[in-house]
Amino acid sequence: MASEPHHVVIVGAGFGGLATARVLGNSPVRVTLVDRRNYHLFQPLLYQVATAVLSPSDIAEPIRRILSRYKNITVLMGEVTGIATEQREIQFAGRVLRYDTLVLATGATHSYFGHSEWERFAPGLKTLEDARRIRANILLALERAELETDPEVRRRLMTFAVIGGGPTGVEMAGSIAGLTHEALEREFRNIDPRRARILLVEAGSRILPQFPEDLSAYAERALVRLGVEISVGAPVNDINADGIQVGETFIPCGTIVWGAGVRASPVGDWLSRETDRAGHVSVNPDLSVPGFENIYVIGDAALAKDDKGTPLPGLAQVAQQQGYYLGRALLRRITKGEEPPPFRFHSRGNLAVIGRNAAVVEWNDVKLRGFLAWLVWGIAHVYLLVGFQNRLIVTLRWLYAYLTYRPGTRIIPDDRGGEAMAKPNEPRGT
Amino acid sequence: MASEPHHVVIVGAGFGGLATARVLGNSPVRVTLVDRRNYHLFQPLLYQVATAVLSPSDIAEPIRRILSRYKNITVLMGEVTGIATEQREIQFAGRVLRYDTLVLATGATHSYFGHSEWERFAPGLKTLEDARRIRANILLALERAELETDPEVRRRLMTFAVIGGGPTGVEMAGSIAGLTHEALEREFRNIDPRRARILLVEAGSRILPQFPEDLSAYAERALVRLGVEISVGAPVNDINADGIQVGETFIPCGTIVWGAGVRASPVGDWLSRETDRAGHVSVNPDLSVPGFENIYVIGDAALAKDDKGTPLPGLAQVAQQQGYYLGRALLRRITKGEEPPPFRFHSRGNLAVIGRNAAVVEWNDVKLRGFLAWLVWGIAHVYLLVGFQNRLIVTLRWLYAYLTYRPGTRIIPDDRGGEAMAKPNEPRGT
Repeated sequence: MASEPHHVVIVGAGFGGLATARVLGNSPVRVTLVDRRNYHLFQPLLYQVATAVLSPSDIAEPIRRILSRYKNITVLMGEVTGIATEQREIQFAGRVLRYDTLVLATGATHSYFGHSEWERFAPGLKTLEDARRIRANILLALERAELETDPEVRRRLMTFAVIGGGPTGVEMAGSIAGLTHEALEREFRNIDPRRARILLVEAGSRILPQFPEDLSAYAERALVRLGVEISVGAPVNDINADGIQVGETFIPCGTIVWGAGVRASPVGDWLSRETDRAGHVSVNPDLSVPGFENIYVIGDAALAKDDKGTPLPGLAQVAQQQGYYLGRALLRRITKGEEPPPFRFHSRGNLAVIGRNAAVVEWNDVKLRGFLAWLVWGIAHVYLLVGFQNRLIVTLRWLYAYLTYRPGTRIIPDDRGGEAMAKPNEPRGT
Repeated sequence: MASEPHHVVIVGAGFGGLATARVLGNSPVRVTLVDRRNYHLFQPLLYQVATAVLSPSDIAEPIRRILSRYKNITVLMGEVTGIATEQREIQFAGRVLRYDTLVLATGATHSYFGHSEWERFAPGLKTLEDARRIRANILLALERAELETDPEVRRRLMTFAVIGGGPTGVEMAGSIAGLTHEALEREFRNIDPRRARILLVEAGSRILPQFPEDLSAYAERALVRLGVEISVGAPVNDINADGIQVGETFIPCGTIVWGAGVRASPVGDWLSRETDRAGHVSVNPDLSVPGFENIYVIGDAALAKDDKGTPLPGLAQVAQQQGYYLGRALLRRITKGEEPPPFRFHSRGNLAVIGRNAAVVEWNDVKLRGFLAWLVWGIAHVYLLVGFQNRLIVTLRWLYAYLTYRPGTRIIPDDRGGEAMAKPNEPRGT
């Protein structure tokens, strides 16, 4: 054995990277985890930050704290800008870091299908800053409507559009409906937030296409009951400061949220490897990148396939299982020289929440909907949250919001509020 | 009686403006409250947001929600840009609003004694954005120190300076010491946060000059026990990207917090009235502005005096008592035509917290210090917080932090972290 222990560098502390690190914790390998943020983000609840139910820190836990018990793991904060595969080095924060094995778990960002100019008007929901921005947009639209005297402008300001009928879009639309139609009663004098118009726009033939048809149909009914208008079968052809073009119809909107497309982080560029259209890098059954025996890609940046050749979905549970698998596989390979078996994904079910007492759950042959599904969703998410204080506070905020109909974190950050209200006719964003 | 009810416009929803509005709630006058933010901020706990104990939303409550039960009060969000006293109009958010009576409760901001260039390196603590910025600066300094290989740069990054020995400075210094010396143990591999150097710099002869000398001396001992170095009797002569000049000595610092001077908001300019050096507008004993029978200034923007001619301090309790007084006085004047008695301030005591189990309290002849003072301080602040959910969550976060020594909200916002870590040798700020 050489004197220097094997050095595993993990880039990204999402579900995948963190799982890998945990398995390698207190093992004979040396681990460095690099992330451009100092916290692990619990993305499944991001939409609740965007709709003022939770506070950013409730779903963010410092990476250092999570890994502090593992003496062999060093956490460094910095943004990776490139990889020199020949030298076995990553470039980040103006420095270089040598690796023996590299794990890339850098996730995904939004994709606007070639229309990057739409981002300005229709932010997506991937980071805490995105959530803070969407929360500010929603609350500012109502503040402006309260000030507005022109009824047409007021109607536009009180129209909220969510683009994309997947779980994120459904959760956002349901949550905006809860906020405007239930929580803000009696707080405004010139507008009635209960009359806010909330649109969910899906280009395909039904919302929640990942779920069986009867659960999609239930979700549609539940959303309509919450006061959400659903449009399916027509794509969004344009987005600008005034609204969205759905098929042939232009709909004036005050707030637009993008939940339609994602694109993998630039791992393909770093490795000079071809990717699919969404930027995913193809990986071998053991999650290594073809042509590199010591580089692995997991989670939303990877294109992994199941036994039938179907690509695995971009879910937290996929990334997490890949992370645990890869940690164990690396230990076997590095410490014992053994070849691990290929990765296999075991689905823990699909969940999507619609609103108060309404959710859908699918797990093998089990299908749940309504209150029971909602309860399962809530308990599962509190359980999966990282950090005891976060679990306690999220539970408390949910109980409070459930009993009073009042979400707890309705602040518009200074850096957006003042500026935006001073120029009420400018588009929000950037 | 005329058909139009008397219209009171209140600018600012701090302690003063909110108190005025509450007294006028559900009365025969019409009230409009204007603020550039959508929330009331509980400033006394702002330093705990800056040191990662609390989350911004814990100490911010939507103004609309606080006042929702009062049907005669309209809340509008927008920044006031001027006042046309002849026309009885305020200009805000590109509009005008007519008033019969105007209450200006716009508070104060930092003052750098003519050195506005210092703000870039030494942010003050008045807004949630300030607190978020200081929190990011403190946490980023440690992240950079962990990456740094030059021992001199590392020492600079691990030096934290707080300027100003009043309650804000004492609270900040004690809280930074708690964070670095207690909470972050075991989380770093290359640095030891317990060796962070924390300086409290006061130009006068002792810290907490508002308190009796024995309580100042106690506070000094308690801070030293927490590992804070105190410098008194020498002013800060310069602040730049590398550190601070105290008297003749230059001290390299990674993080600087300004707690030394405040300046009233530009009410004097709006009214074309002279102010004292700190921008306060002199007011009559009934808090009206000399020369304007229908304009009042309260709180940190006003220069009010007690019976002996001593100016009242810039405290939340002064603003709040002035607000309650003014609300009652306006009601008497408007509905009954009676002249109210002059305003009198009744001190509810002085409090300052130093750290775990350490605080000072002075109330008439009662002087408390240590654990009991700390308990009184904590209970008083939870009681004074606005909003049931906030009280519950602050209590919970405090209990958690007290038992585990771990503050709960250690996130570095994206908009600061990535950029700052990418250019590790640039000054933070702006």
